[in-house]
Amino acid sequence: MNTTGRIFQVSLFGESHGPAVGVTLDGVPPGLALAPEDFEADLARRRSGAAGTTDRREPDRPEILSGLYRGRTTGTPLCLIFRNTDTRSEDYAPLASVPRPGHADFTGSVRYRGFQDPRGSGHFSGRITAGLVAAGVVAKKLLPGVALETRILEAGGDTDVQAAARRASEAGDSVGALVEVRVRGLPAGLGEPFFDPVEGRIAGALFSVPGVRGVEFGDGFAAARMLGSGHNDPIVGKDGRTSRNGAGGANGGITNGNDLLVRIAVKPASSIRMPQRTLDFTTGEMTDLSVPGRHDACIALRAAVVLEAACAVCLADFILLARTYDAAPDIEG
Amino acid sequence: MNTTGRIFQVSLFGESHGPAVGVTLDGVPPGLALAPEDFEADLARRRSGAAGTTDRREPDRPEILSGLYRGRTTGTPLCLIFRNTDTRSEDYAPLASVPRPGHADFTGSVRYRGFQDPRGSGHFSGRITAGLVAAGVVAKKLLPGVALETRILEAGGDTDVQAAARRASEAGDSVGALVEVRVRGLPAGLGEPFFDPVEGRIAGALFSVPGVRGVEFGDGFAAARMLGSGHNDPIVGKDGRTSRNGAGGANGGITNGNDLLVRIAVKPASSIRMPQRTLDFTTGEMTDLSVPGRHDACIALRAAVVLEAACAVCLADFILLARTYDAAPDIEG
Amino acid sequence: MNTTGRIFQVSLFGESHGPAVGVTLDGVPPGLALAPEDFEADLARRRSGAAGTTDRREPDRPEILSGLYRGRTTGTPLCLIFRNTDTRSEDYAPLASVPRPGHADFTGSVRYRGFQDPRGSGHFSGRITAGLVAAGVVAKKLLPGVALETRILEAGGDTDVQAAARRASEAGDSVGALVEVRVRGLPAGLGEPFFDPVEGRIAGALFSVPGVRGVEFGDGFAAARMLGSGHNDPIVGKDGRTSRNGAGGANGGITNGNDLLVRIAVKPASSIRMPQRTLDFTTGEMTDLSVPGRHDACIALRAAVVLEAACAVCLADFILLARTYDAAPDIEG
Amino acid sequence: MNTTGRIFQVSLFGESHGPAVGVTLDGVPPGLALAPEDFEADLARRRSGAAGTTDRREPDRPEILSGLYRGRTTGTPLCLIFRNTDTRSEDYAPLASVPRPGHADFTGSVRYRGFQDPRGSGHFSGRITAGLVAAGVVAKKLLPGVALETRILEAGGDTDVQAAARRASEAGDSVGALVEVRVRGLPAGLGEPFFDPVEGRIAGALFSVPGVRGVEFGDGFAAARMLGSGHNDPIVGKDGRTSRNGAGGANGGITNGNDLLVRIAVKPASSIRMPQRTLDFTTGEMTDLSVPGRHDACIALRAAVVLEAACAVCLADFILLARTYDAAPDIEG
Repeated sequence: MNTTGRIFQVSLFGESHGPAVGVTLDGVPPGLALAPEDFEADLARRRSGAAGTTDRREPDRPEILSGLYRGRTTGTPLCLIFRNTDTRSEDYAPLASVPRPGHADFTGSVRYRGFQDPRGSGHFSGRITAGLVAAGVVAKKLLPGVALETRILEAGGDTDVQAAARRASEAGDSVGALVEVRVRGLPAGLGEPFFDPVEGRIAGALFSVPGVRGVEFGDGFAAARMLGSGHNDPIVGKDGRTSRNGAGGANGGITNGNDLLVRIAVKPASSIRMPQRTLDFTTGEMTDLSVPGRHDACIALRAAVVLEAACAVCLADFILLARTYDAAPDIEG
Repeated sequence: MNTTGRIFQVSLFGESHGPAVGVTLDGVPPGLALAPEDFEADLARRRSGAAGTTDRREPDRPEILSGLYRGRTTGTPLCLIFRNTDTRSEDYAPLASVPRPGHADFTGSVRYRGFQDPRGSGHFSGRITAGLVAAGVVAKKLLPGVALETRILEAGGDTDVQAAARRASEAGDSVGALVEVRVRGLPAGLGEPFFDPVEGRIAGALFSVPGVRGVEFGDGFAAARMLGSGHNDPIVGKDGRTSRNGAGGANGGITNGNDLLVRIAVKPASSIRMPQRTLDFTTGEMTDLSVPGRHDACIALRAAVVLEAACAVCLADFILLARTYDAAPDIEG
Repeated sequence: MNTTGRIFQVSLFGESHGPAVGVTLDGVPPGLALAPEDFEADLARRRSGAAGTTDRREPDRPEILSGLYRGRTTGTPLCLIFRNTDTRSEDYAPLASVPRPGHADFTGSVRYRGFQDPRGSGHFSGRITAGLVAAGVVAKKLLPGVALETRILEAGGDTDVQAAARRASEAGDSVGALVEVRVRGLPAGLGEPFFDPVEGRIAGALFSVPGVRGVEFGDGFAAARMLGSGHNDPIVGKDGRTSRNGAGGANGGITNGNDLLVRIAVKPASSIRMPQRTLDFTTGEMTDLSVPGRHDACIALRAAVVLEAACAVCLADFILLARTYDAAPDIEG
Repeated sequence: MNTTGRIFQVSLFGESHGPAVGVTLDGVPPGLALAPEDFEADLARRRSGAAGTTDRREPDRPEILSGLYRGRTTGTPLCLIFRNTDTRSEDYAPLASVPRPGHADFTGSVRYRGFQDPRGSGHFSGRITAGLVAAGVVAKKLLPGVALETRILEAGGDTDVQAAARRASEAGDSVGALVEVRVRGLPAGLGEPFFDPVEGRIAGALFSVPGVRGVEFGDGFAAARMLGSGHNDPIVGKDGRTSRNGAGGANGGITNGNDLLVRIAVKPASSIRMPQRTLDFTTGEMTDLSVPGRHDACIALRAAVVLEAACAVCLADFILLARTYDAAPDIEG
């Protein structure tokens, strides 16, 4: 299903080399000021050109097809598209015979019975995330007083991320990264344990972003190695603030007044200039595969804003949902 | 929302000290042989008594209220309940004044405006997971040829899990753990990138299980430290098998023919016999909180089958969904 | 799918001769005063005994299994069951060979591959609507200031409904009826055109009630015979009130400030004492079928409160949804 | 919510005078042959020009933005748009002061807090149904062996529909109509009673089409006036065929092997050349309102294919859902 969200709903569509990729948003409150320029900053964070990123240049000005009137959202479905123009199909080797390891060539072929658009990774391309970033821009406008801060903690285990990316790029290699998203200013009380915990919803959206291998909150995997006595995290304020936020912002699936703190493991890109050995499905023999095209040495550099958008989209939905949590009429008086 | 799944749908209800906890399943294919005894083995894995677990004894024989006739599922909604009988309310300190750190006392109070049932953690109790385990039993019957293998890799960083649990228990402490679920025999082609990747769905369900702090697939967080050249995972068989299954069973959100391999970080239980310092909301002062009741030293020992059930429930839904993926009529002839 | 609603969600389960029928509600705001007695009045309206209804007596006191604490809803899923006790299986002729015309014997057998519970019509029995009525009781508590008025306009074309029912009963026959539900006090602005119009949602729920053959709003089918000039319905108040409410309460799928006015056509019960000729699937020959058991001469007498409950359940969801419609943060200030 | 369907999902977007209207389809099986020309016939049925219809001419060639490769569906989301070009804004009187009776000017203003696009009725315009018709074209390709036959039974009570439409047009008036959709060739076993009956789903979609006031199946509202003995409809074939199909194709919410037979009441268009008296919200006085623009004398002439598309879209979803109904693995062998 291509939709996430219960009130603020986001649907993506598009193939990398099709006419356009895009996104439809529903449940956007009416009256929100919005213009194509508003998307520029976050799309720039996603754009090619930075060290360690591919040099495919795409016009990043979206066209808004619906849901906007005189500069404000109408409250009706908002569809926004990005035309695909800068495509060089010849960069990609024949994929039917030799599906690329680590890509969705094989899985997409099974899932879509061989009818998927293979060009530029089709619907699996990172290109499709342009729509998610756009959705994130709108979502953030629905989160006044909430700040999302995203940073790459390390690449290949090195805290000097740019250096690690450069080394990988020069070697024709790629490197994974650890990304952190911190969300400040969320109210307590969002989410519910079975089955809409805030961590679960966010993790669900994050795993949609290509390249994600793990998601953790607060202490994360370190909690598996802790004792309860050391894991202790007393509440220190009536707003729910705790001493060290070991939970990363939620208890029982519900936000607890601390920053929401999530870390995401992004794998190294599978397309590298160095040859890889893999199966030729036609001959049945192992073969050398070189993918000479455009490669990201550190995809996390571009993916960071996408991961942030995924979080924002989920949180905007929770904020709207929370309006339905209020006590019953006879209590509210 | 309390429902997970699109075809095979699971809804949980219940409070720890209410009349009953239970689960409703919908989309269960008709004709499945089912009986209350079928739940015994997995419920036993969840039951108290093992070293390091609480000694609350609950009758684990579910009562099936609907959806079953002459020992076979009818295909209509199947509701199954567990009566709550072994409750000792006096085990729990007054929670309104001093919400327990690491629990959902505070967050539940915000979310439910103070009207939540606080006894035995109410709807946040691990007791509610009995229904999820039951759902997992049914789900596994819908996964012929698929085997789920769950094991605790380490507790508190120690591969001798039982020893670590015992030490914690004796100290009145608790210990976290790392749990692995390996799923063999899944077909390739389940899931889709935006927004129903198999990793995202499973992670979403796993984060509903109390105590989960992180979820990773395949290389997981180690991938963040890898280079592409070392991360290389060539396809070695026409069934999609790869050399080392670094992706943990999926590419582009779609199962790839390898085992699905997920690891879950479970935090140490927050209720321990050792006193904890936390805020008294009434006085506004920090106070010592002791929770003398029944505590799990290593909740992962009981949670393992719950985590396995969460995976099974998602996969059963994907298996049924996959029946709708087939090519269009004019292709199928 | 057995769930209706997006925020206030209702799921039914149960077979007529199974252990119990019931309902689970989710999205119920916390703090609502609720007790088993609250269901008595509407369940009585549904109960047997009135002229023209069957004389199956069921205890109508529900047992609330979850979601209630100290007399108020907790905000967590609320499950409520009705035990089945007064069943006389032998009333029903063998259905596998001779599926009853007008019933779901044949369709249920196809849908559920022959594994449905056939006793007392199983999951198709009007018994299952007890849960819907209960859901309606809760829903109405979420509609302060809103009044639902339900009446049977005619039975068999006769405005003296009781007389028509009596005549049918004495003849061993049954009679259809036209039921009207009028809803006063709804705010304008509920619903949206594509794809959640208030009429569509309500009609969807109404067609779930056994025996419904048609649903119309306002002028209804009479509008098909009107001219625009005669259909004219000027707005006469700033609250949206119109002159004659020809639309029945909504325009463009959105409530318009007038009473919501819906009429439902209920067919005559298909089980009658008079023999009917139908196919014997075993012999392949037409045969006489007598269903000697308990029959409703006018099912609308019992169904009226069920139809009302269906409306209430939809409207409660719309009322909660409407909380998410408010203008964007920067407008609200 | 702007999406209908559980597997085959349809979402509409667009305003009448915005850049484009469109539709996104998800769950379309891969490999379906599809081209822009395929939409021509049904879009022509919807187009202006026929007697009694408006003379707004819109290019009806859709642009397919995604989900298609080499003439076949990819199985990924399929987005299709119609550019809006032939708009004459000056046709519409100021609506803020004098909302038109029978339109969604007032209700849209409440629902969208005054931020809706008012031009050409914005998101409430029949223009938006172009996307629904396109969805219907695809849906019908997923219904091999199924034929949908739509006809206008009467307009203004007159079986000579064209004559009635012409009379109304000449008088500057409009006329309502009764539309029938008959679906041949559906398998039995689609749908389920609580809460996805086939009649309920279809009615829900039909009420999204502007102008619909009532929906009935089979005997419809006539059933309210029948006796059981006369309503008798014996099964006459092992495929479930009945003698007179009084149920209109379903029992217990499940298709029964007969034609699905639904009739829809369409109101007369509210915009007519004759002046109407209604409230001026600015002055608080009743005023004469003339809407001189382009009017349909009989909107059913254009709406018929839209109603048919609504049915097709629902049925395509049911056909795909039915693949998940099969008996459990241990039964299937």
